Amino acid sequence: MRSYDEYCAIAKSLDVVGDRWTLLIVRELAQRGPSRYTDLRNGLPGIATNLLADRLRELEQAGVVLREDAPPPIATALFSLTPRGEELRPLLHDLTRWGLPLMTEQKPEDAVRSQWLAIALEG
Amino acid sequence: MRSYDEYCAIAKSLDVVGDRWTLLIVRELAQRGPSRYTDLRNGLPGIATNLLADRLRELEQAGVVLREDAPPPIATALFSLTPRGEELRPLLHDLTRWGLPLMTEQKPEDAVRSQWLAIALEG
Repeated sequence: MRSYDEYCAIAKSLDVVGDRWTLLIVRELAQRGPSRYTDLRNGLPGIATNLLADRLRELEQAGVVLREDAPPPIATALFSLTPRGEELRPLLHDLTRWGLPLMTEQKPEDAVRSQWLAIALEG
Repeated sequence: MRSYDEYCAIAKSLDVVGDRWTLLIVRELAQRGPSRYTDLRNGLPGIATNLLADRLRELEQAGVVLREDAPPPIATALFSLTPRGEELRPLLHDLTRWGLPLMTEQKPEDAVRSQWLAIALEG
């Protein structure tokens, strides 16, 4: 997490969520709810596994993500958005809205995913 | 501009504006209106000068920034947001709102800057 070291609310936000992959991790958690590490890795096929771990730790330290050890039968760590993390939903909405015109080459299975995303983000 | 190569509107947006410094350049243009290269560099003291040039060229190619050669007495290139770039204002607003709680060590001159930013973003 590199800081812009600027006294500006936008820069402060980007210090926390502006690094590569971070907002896509937040997107996964906003869509899926509490998730195992494996779920997140599967949802983000391009991410290096240690990068995902680093980003999750940074987001936990920043109060955006909560990590809890779930008892059996889950028996592994579960990651979820904190209330502060939930406050990023408007940002995800804006990014969705702004990105829609860029979705020109639409494939049928992707249309379903888009729709599902729009619905999931309402939650 | 590295692509996430994901069929998702959020990822598509971040392909364009998710790189380091990009949204701070958009912030400068949103605040200042048409700006010379020198104005932008002065507003972003931490940015490497070739990185600013690269980002501006990428934003121009993506239709977010317009570059125009202004006649004398300006006699240099002016950069401004296109209508598509203006559509990023809600995103800047959300980042401002989300970042406000992170502005804990407030210095008087920065409070003025914050206020000015909030007013400028209304425009």
